[in-house]
Amino acid sequence: MSAGMKWWGWGDPERRVELPETAVSAVRAELGVAADAAGEPVSIGQVSLPDARPLPDAVRSAAGELLDGADDRIRHATGRSYPDLVRLRTGRLDHAPDAVLRPSDAGEVEAVLEACAAGGVAVVPYGGGTSVVGGLEALAGAHSAVVSLELSRLRSVELDARSLTARLGPGLTGPEAEAALGALGATLGHFPQSFEEATIGGFAATRSAGQASSGYGRFDDLVTGLELASPAGRLRTLQIPHTAAGPSLRELVLGSEGTLGVITDVTCRVRPAPPTRVYEGWIAADFEAGREIVRDLAQRHEAPDVLRLSDEEETRVSLELAGTQGFQKRALDAYLSLRRRRGGCLMICGWEGEREDVNRRRGISQARLRLGGAVSLGRSAGNSWFRNRYGGPYLRDELMNLGVLVETLETAHTWSRLDELYRAVGGALRGALGERSIVMCHVSHAYPDGASLYFTFLTAARSGEELDQWRVAKSAACEAIVGAEGTITHHHAVGRDHAPYMRAEVGELGLEALRAVKERLDPAGIMNPGKLLPAD
Amino acid sequence: MSAGMKWWGWGDPERRVELPETAVSAVRAELGVAADAAGEPVSIGQVSLPDARPLPDAVRSAAGELLDGADDRIRHATGRSYPDLVRLRTGRLDHAPDAVLRPSDAGEVEAVLEACAAGGVAVVPYGGGTSVVGGLEALAGAHSAVVSLELSRLRSVELDARSLTARLGPGLTGPEAEAALGALGATLGHFPQSFEEATIGGFAATRSAGQASSGYGRFDDLVTGLELASPAGRLRTLQIPHTAAGPSLRELVLGSEGTLGVITDVTCRVRPAPPTRVYEGWIAADFEAGREIVRDLAQRHEAPDVLRLSDEEETRVSLELAGTQGFQKRALDAYLSLRRRRGGCLMICGWEGEREDVNRRRGISQARLRLGGAVSLGRSAGNSWFRNRYGGPYLRDELMNLGVLVETLETAHTWSRLDELYRAVGGALRGALGERSIVMCHVSHAYPDGASLYFTFLTAARSGEELDQWRVAKSAACEAIVGAEGTITHHHAVGRDHAPYMRAEVGELGLEALRAVKERLDPAGIMNPGKLLPAD
Repeated sequence: MSAGMKWWGWGDPERRVELPETAVSAVRAELGVAADAAGEPVSIGQVSLPDARPLPDAVRSAAGELLDGADDRIRHATGRSYPDLVRLRTGRLDHAPDAVLRPSDAGEVEAVLEACAAGGVAVVPYGGGTSVVGGLEALAGAHSAVVSLELSRLRSVELDARSLTARLGPGLTGPEAEAALGALGATLGHFPQSFEEATIGGFAATRSAGQASSGYGRFDDLVTGLELASPAGRLRTLQIPHTAAGPSLRELVLGSEGTLGVITDVTCRVRPAPPTRVYEGWIAADFEAGREIVRDLAQRHEAPDVLRLSDEEETRVSLELAGTQGFQKRALDAYLSLRRRRGGCLMICGWEGEREDVNRRRGISQARLRLGGAVSLGRSAGNSWFRNRYGGPYLRDELMNLGVLVETLETAHTWSRLDELYRAVGGALRGALGERSIVMCHVSHAYPDGASLYFTFLTAARSGEELDQWRVAKSAACEAIVGAEGTITHHHAVGRDHAPYMRAEVGELGLEALRAVKERLDPAGIMNPGKLLPAD
Repeated sequence: MSAGMKWWGWGDPERRVELPETAVSAVRAELGVAADAAGEPVSIGQVSLPDARPLPDAVRSAAGELLDGADDRIRHATGRSYPDLVRLRTGRLDHAPDAVLRPSDAGEVEAVLEACAAGGVAVVPYGGGTSVVGGLEALAGAHSAVVSLELSRLRSVELDARSLTARLGPGLTGPEAEAALGALGATLGHFPQSFEEATIGGFAATRSAGQASSGYGRFDDLVTGLELASPAGRLRTLQIPHTAAGPSLRELVLGSEGTLGVITDVTCRVRPAPPTRVYEGWIAADFEAGREIVRDLAQRHEAPDVLRLSDEEETRVSLELAGTQGFQKRALDAYLSLRRRRGGCLMICGWEGEREDVNRRRGISQARLRLGGAVSLGRSAGNSWFRNRYGGPYLRDELMNLGVLVETLETAHTWSRLDELYRAVGGALRGALGERSIVMCHVSHAYPDGASLYFTFLTAARSGEELDQWRVAKSAACEAIVGAEGTITHHHAVGRDHAPYMRAEVGELGLEALRAVKERLDPAGIMNPGKLLPAD
């Protein structure tokens, strides 16, 4: 995590998302959360964590910096999934790294891996600390200890302006990379909700998708080359635009989530920074009508760079939570007037680029939106979304402070089977959570052949039983996804939470192939134990 | 190969590319080829091939069809590389499959692999027989025999019109797939020079790129899901638009060239068949000016769907070979008048899609072409290229009939290093071939970060020493590519010819990772021995 991330939650400790009083009341009423259910986090001094196990001297001295205070261990013990946050806030950490190592370059990373492999110490590579799937849980596996390998000192930036590529250190956060590239007139165009805290290495290791990935491409599409330091040595792919030289090793490292080694270098395609950005809100008649608009634009390769469609429930709740500030009042009015007909679904459309091209593409989308019965909410609605687009995780902290269990999960499928998947997952979550819950969804990434579905669910947390509640709902959703042959994750990655579902995702032989690679690159099995691959 | 492919060369036995007499004379004069150097192929009855080794009964009966006549063995003994053609034409085959098996479905493919693994018989998967890198050479490796596994009976077509995807059997040839999809209003948009003979399974197994891949995407970009029958069992990826569930197994099977198993099923993105196609010829002032136009259009994501730029030498030679028919005379005139200034380079630009969009994109390209000093040759030049776009391999047969050694190879690099690569490979080939040779090149695939280079070289074949001549030139080119850190192949794949360079391409640890996967999926090592991975 960045130096200053809240130890018990998301982002800047000084920044809070204020929930309007009306929203607080509405959430409490709807979910049946008592006004005294509020659960503020314990203080960091109250957190109990396992005693640090001794580390071999060779491990302690392999990197220039080593931190082993309780605070550092707590700050590197987890990511930012709901279970992670529950454990942090209640001060009960079953796992923590025995120390945090901060190598200064790829050579020191290799030295750490060598020392850890020799000494039987597990390694959890650590970028921004933002995993929401248990990808950072400090598990030692079969080893005697575990270290967190923080990559924040690997922050080089090297632009090839002629090829429009940038070679980036894995420890750069989103804003650091954008600031460096922006000064040179370029952008990555990669803006996931975790943008402010997450890192380049993490984007690559988890196949991140950003809010503008419809336009700029998912992170795995942007990567043209990379370098991996594994316990068995260094793996480097050529920096070339494309190749037919066999299976793709780049695509083997992308998504490997620290289980094969540490990504020490990432080369990405960049673009000229867009001179024009236009964001708009729209209301589609219903989720199905909205999906048809999204499908058609994606299949014509004319989708806006940002294209999000909330279902009826997410539309209702997000307007409710937003209260009366900004565009929301007007949106609400439009929404309510539409509602007299059939209800409605909020859409956000954003275009970035040269003004002329933005205008042209916007015109195509607007015509299609109107043809599909959508009503414009104008640019203020879009700009409001744009301003708040990294706010979700802050809102989660506030909801948890109120005593709400809140979690998100995502999947994807072809257009033919998207509705089946939507109903299956929504039904499974509602079944697991009971009547007093909110289950809502949006489409956030559209492709010619399908789209992602991003679910958010809320219910009253039962103090002390949150993790069981979460497990029941999460399992139900995952089983529904697997049953509908959707992917277990479109962009949150696998981590610990989805590992049991990898067998359904890739089959037994697929697992065998992944295990074969892991055994070759990480023979001692020290890299991020318990993640990605199922235990059995 | 398709039922009727010329046994000793390319394509339809009834079809010949007639070289104008002026072209024949010019080639002979320039390369120093004697008029009596002509080398027509031997008859198929004169071909010597090794005796067929016995096959276990279980192998013989595993597929519904087995062919083991000399003709069938000869027709499946090689692909269509220059060395392959030399061996066929001179009737000296050192290797041939002991039989050809024709399974009727994926189940029979699996039965064949099981029987072969148990019986110690190597398997060479065979689609269209068009490999130009030795990918089909019937090597038994450490095994007692080798069979060719022909996939021509796996030709199913299943369109998902809502998701714009098609599930295709691996044995469909390009025209078969396009005919089936075309009847449903769709197209794959994949048109490599081998289109008329090559197959869907081969496109996937070799990461094929087509002439229109700038617009439609390379074949590996089109594939959204696939199934592989390996000796260790079946590997199937989900049919989803995208996933973050770990390393990509799809990208591990793509490019595997039959070394991991047999691709039995490919699901691809398709597009609506384009109502409008416009092709034009242009002359750029020189290769560098042309490259800058191509780079700029690709980086603005406004490249034509087909975009090819010949260097000065290829421009000169292709106009010379074309003689005076069709557009060429006019092109020649324009070319000659330009030549008084600085020489010139032929460009082909093609746009496909809705009329309005074609017009818009064409306008952008035309403006950029003019700005870069290019001169239009009009649509007849483009249409002439379009009509003849699968003719290259036929022309090769005619040149070989004249006694010319003719070969192609391709690579790719970033824009920053493309010129370095161009000079290095061109210089290496000229050095190896000597003064009386032609070395020419075009850019055929442009990306925002770089482009491919496609070289063709010609020299007088020294009868009986052709393979040595070829080896010297090919090695020099490959060493130059490796020295410049380009990729050893942009779309021809690795096969046997490029296997020794895979160490430079992916490094020792990359090889180890690939070997680990192979050992798991093909423990007996029966799948396409001697291809893709270096022997040592």
